[in-house]
Amino acid sequence: MNPDRLSALSGEARVVPGDPPQRAGDELSLDVWGFRDSAFRAMPNGSVVFIGSRYALCGAEMPDLLPWVRDVLGAELRPDDVHDVAGLPPVPAARENRRFVEDIRSLLPDDAISTEPAVRLRHGHGHTLEEMYAIKYERLERVPDMVIFPSTEERVAGVVDAAARHDVCLVPYGGGTNVSDALRCPTDEERMIVSVDLGRMNRILWIDRTNLMASIQAGAVGRQIQEQLARYGYTLGHEPDSIELSTLGGWIATQASGMKKNRYGNIEDLVLDVQVATPRGRLERPAVAPRESAGVDPRRLILGSEGTLGIITSAVVKIFPLPAVQRYDSLLFPSFADGVGFMYDLTRRSAPPASVRLVDNLQFQLSVTLKPRATGLRRLERRLEKLVVTKLMGFDPGRMVACTLVYEGEASEVAAQERAVRRIARRHGGRRAGAENGRVGYQLTFAIAYLRDFVMKHYVLGESLETSVPWSQALALCDNVKRRIADEHARRRLPGRPFVSCRVTQLYQTGVCIYFYLAFYHKGVERPARVFAEIERCAREEILRSGGSLSHHHGVGKLRQEFLPDVMSEAALAWRAEVKRAVDPTNVFGIANQRVDAGRAARLEADRAAPKA
Amino acid sequence: MNPDRLSALSGEARVVPGDPPQRAGDELSLDVWGFRDSAFRAMPNGSVVFIGSRYALCGAEMPDLLPWVRDVLGAELRPDDVHDVAGLPPVPAARENRRFVEDIRSLLPDDAISTEPAVRLRHGHGHTLEEMYAIKYERLERVPDMVIFPSTEERVAGVVDAAARHDVCLVPYGGGTNVSDALRCPTDEERMIVSVDLGRMNRILWIDRTNLMASIQAGAVGRQIQEQLARYGYTLGHEPDSIELSTLGGWIATQASGMKKNRYGNIEDLVLDVQVATPRGRLERPAVAPRESAGVDPRRLILGSEGTLGIITSAVVKIFPLPAVQRYDSLLFPSFADGVGFMYDLTRRSAPPASVRLVDNLQFQLSVTLKPRATGLRRLERRLEKLVVTKLMGFDPGRMVACTLVYEGEASEVAAQERAVRRIARRHGGRRAGAENGRVGYQLTFAIAYLRDFVMKHYVLGESLETSVPWSQALALCDNVKRRIADEHARRRLPGRPFVSCRVTQLYQTGVCIYFYLAFYHKGVERPARVFAEIERCAREEILRSGGSLSHHHGVGKLRQEFLPDVMSEAALAWRAEVKRAVDPTNVFGIANQRVDAGRAARLEADRAAPKA
Repeated sequence: MNPDRLSALSGEARVVPGDPPQRAGDELSLDVWGFRDSAFRAMPNGSVVFIGSRYALCGAEMPDLLPWVRDVLGAELRPDDVHDVAGLPPVPAARENRRFVEDIRSLLPDDAISTEPAVRLRHGHGHTLEEMYAIKYERLERVPDMVIFPSTEERVAGVVDAAARHDVCLVPYGGGTNVSDALRCPTDEERMIVSVDLGRMNRILWIDRTNLMASIQAGAVGRQIQEQLARYGYTLGHEPDSIELSTLGGWIATQASGMKKNRYGNIEDLVLDVQVATPRGRLERPAVAPRESAGVDPRRLILGSEGTLGIITSAVVKIFPLPAVQRYDSLLFPSFADGVGFMYDLTRRSAPPASVRLVDNLQFQLSVTLKPRATGLRRLERRLEKLVVTKLMGFDPGRMVACTLVYEGEASEVAAQERAVRRIARRHGGRRAGAENGRVGYQLTFAIAYLRDFVMKHYVLGESLETSVPWSQALALCDNVKRRIADEHARRRLPGRPFVSCRVTQLYQTGVCIYFYLAFYHKGVERPARVFAEIERCAREEILRSGGSLSHHHGVGKLRQEFLPDVMSEAALAWRAEVKRAVDPTNVFGIANQRVDAGRAARLEADRAAPKA
Repeated sequence: MNPDRLSALSGEARVVPGDPPQRAGDELSLDVWGFRDSAFRAMPNGSVVFIGSRYALCGAEMPDLLPWVRDVLGAELRPDDVHDVAGLPPVPAARENRRFVEDIRSLLPDDAISTEPAVRLRHGHGHTLEEMYAIKYERLERVPDMVIFPSTEERVAGVVDAAARHDVCLVPYGGGTNVSDALRCPTDEERMIVSVDLGRMNRILWIDRTNLMASIQAGAVGRQIQEQLARYGYTLGHEPDSIELSTLGGWIATQASGMKKNRYGNIEDLVLDVQVATPRGRLERPAVAPRESAGVDPRRLILGSEGTLGIITSAVVKIFPLPAVQRYDSLLFPSFADGVGFMYDLTRRSAPPASVRLVDNLQFQLSVTLKPRATGLRRLERRLEKLVVTKLMGFDPGRMVACTLVYEGEASEVAAQERAVRRIARRHGGRRAGAENGRVGYQLTFAIAYLRDFVMKHYVLGESLETSVPWSQALALCDNVKRRIADEHARRRLPGRPFVSCRVTQLYQTGVCIYFYLAFYHKGVERPARVFAEIERCAREEILRSGGSLSHHHGVGKLRQEFLPDVMSEAALAWRAEVKRAVDPTNVFGIANQRVDAGRAARLEADRAAPKA
């Protein structure tokens, strides 16, 4: 036996990485999605550019995007017709619980406490459409009164104690990307609301190379975890679309799902232990087990707790050696049903590639419009490509769809997966469209996230919503949701046509995760964000009616809270409420809570009841 | 696209299987482990036979077993020196809550209610050593006062209602194989105790071939689920050692682990939905999602609830097509450390075979003694085999160990796994020992479970205990536990030597599950079961001290309840208690509860404090 191996098995080899990498230019926007250095911009000639240098998309001129959007939405969208944002909206005055503030000032240094309006505003939303519209064109009626940035577990525990003692409401804050209204402050919350930003608790505490575990603070951001682990030859393998911004604590709290879950699992498969500061003290364990049966396990309640039970401060997670091989690929299919059929057959094998995602025809078209202007030879090439695809292969440009794949693993595993993919794809009329298209498609996710703030400036409101559904209902669900949105759009006599598109982003043996994108042009429409919320709500209703789940990985937040009685029995809801009361009896974690904002539900209910034209 | 595929995706294909198979001879023993037709028996000539025809072991004469046991234990164990069992021990008189009984008699048919002493006794234990010794040579001070056999979900809900109304204590009962004292009735329980046997709720309600799901009642027994699913071409893939007897509901309640988890996952990976009758009503959902993020999910509390929160009545689980290929194999390694090193390296690949188990030298020797007497050519062959292994290969019979493997999957997957296993095994001095030895080794598990009741008749007490531990602590943990048991045995001046043996039964990237077997000869020892409990407790203490978990898959029960403060923070324990109070406020599920039997803990504490010779 190799003596190195034996010694590896008789002692842990823990390394302690340094501080996470900080780069100039990594500052985040306070008013729109993402990094300050990155954004879509319309040019006077009607082309669009993506500024900055962060993404593959950057710099190049995209002449086709705006014309295509105009066309799809059937709207008079002009580059020079801008829905101006006046700047920071009025931010409500901060309430102060004097005794709490005194305690906090003795607990935290001054630079760990902020009452700046822009900072408070940023901590009062998680990028839902309604929230983003509000901070640009309306206002948020209530935001955190104070934002604090504790840097140790002990200080977080002290903050929770102080809040319980002085009746203050705490809101844990990770990346601020929940898209579920989880951070939105209820207008009827009378107590002081304090946002606890975990941003300074962003370290990898240790990496255990023998047992492939790492202990990571909850505020560590995905991209930094990825970069730091990679330096030591490891990956966590968890890559949600928001990986650039979202945090480990947020992933656990929302029960997140990563794009490569076929290989690495979802967050619940990755977390071995979690430390939580709660009003009853700290949830913690002296040892980490590979797997255990320890009776009713409080840690299990933390997954999906969405900030309502305590503040996650750190977690022990599995890590994986970086894959020997990483390869991208892409496929074209004649239709969405063909693509779904391919995916279905692929899951009948035991090991699909790390990531397999299918966009429908509309999203495929969108990705084509995001290509930079081609000139010379490249232009000729593209025309030829198109000719081959549409004429020789017989694909209909108005029906064809694309699938992107990421393979990770040992060379032999990847080779076997590739063989299976090609064999099964052929059976469904699929054609390979190249590794480069796969890579671009996979990475486009990050840049596309900026699109919503861009089109909002041009009177277009857009949002995504996701669900999971068994295979047998997947196609019907997509059709139903698209039809319902079109109907609701028409009933309301909104301008132009709605954009509704979907993609399949996760595969399971039992079904899929489906993402919908919904957008419409609203110039001339009264209270457009409210109309949007109504339509989104109808879409959710249709999803549930079609057998879909309330959420695959975004969670409930406040946005979907009203649907809980549709998906859980009374007893299950009673359990949730009782558990919450039992572990947080004074409702310290009261606003990140899944309480309905009574105003919103009532408003929407009234709208639903009102007769429509 | 194949039109069959498309149609598969536009509708579920649910089939409803018939009643589970019932075979003559499938009756279970009420007083010992397993089926009535199966048992080890000593013959006057000192050989042992296994009666019946259920297992490969059956019929053949095993001349080496008793001599080997005698040798290992250093004890005068004679085939004719039998510790007689007098028959059914005195069963305490049944208490009756008249109003509850009236309600129950109107709810259930007469044949679904039993107050027979033997039946009550059987429902009052789960096969721990102390329990088995008590029912043979002592008595149980408290057993259920009544056993009921509801056959529908509605009736179970009615029973729970009645119990809550009339202050009766309920104990869910599946296969009765928990080995954790979970079923043991606390002597201080004043209320009527009613065991709810799920045995009549044993049907597969439907199999959904499109979405690879099945809805199965909680009382369905593993071997029947396996057999029925196989008829349709599927498997659940969950094969705990107790699969012949244990039930789906029991697996969920104890967070069970199956031998083939590398391929199919543990129970938490398999369960998609669960229906539970609780004092607050039924936990149920209108739809089953492949995966979801639905906030704090009450269903997650049910995993590992060990009967303390409600009665699981059915679950929706994943199913898998039967593997195209199933192959066994076995390997020999020069030492346990070599075998563990092999397993470690194997997990550094992403896909180890479905099952990989390693027995230490003592268990390897035991498996050799379980071979039938060989005659003629077979005898010669065996001698040659032994010669090759010990002389040519240079294995030391007192150190060598064996590893059994089960491969399942597509032919190409299995072939790739086999190549990897052989390559890695060579690196650790491993030699193949044949598919047949692998098959026999894997199946021996079922017959070996009968060994404990057999040796108990010859004054030998034995028990298993299991843990999980990170790789880096695995070898030291095994050494520490073995040494501690030897020390405790010696300190107590018990006769002969203890048998302590271990095997590694599950692999994770992060560590392993280790099973210990502990036995000693007790003729002439006072209150031997109590001495056994003390030593077992020391072993558990040593496991925790060496970085092991409280349990990998057996759960806490009452047996390990006293150790909870060693493995969970105060806040975590408070959460458990609060959650229990919140969802079962009148403690309907009070005895399956993880309450310490105050008497036992105090007794053991006193023993621990007392000075030893």
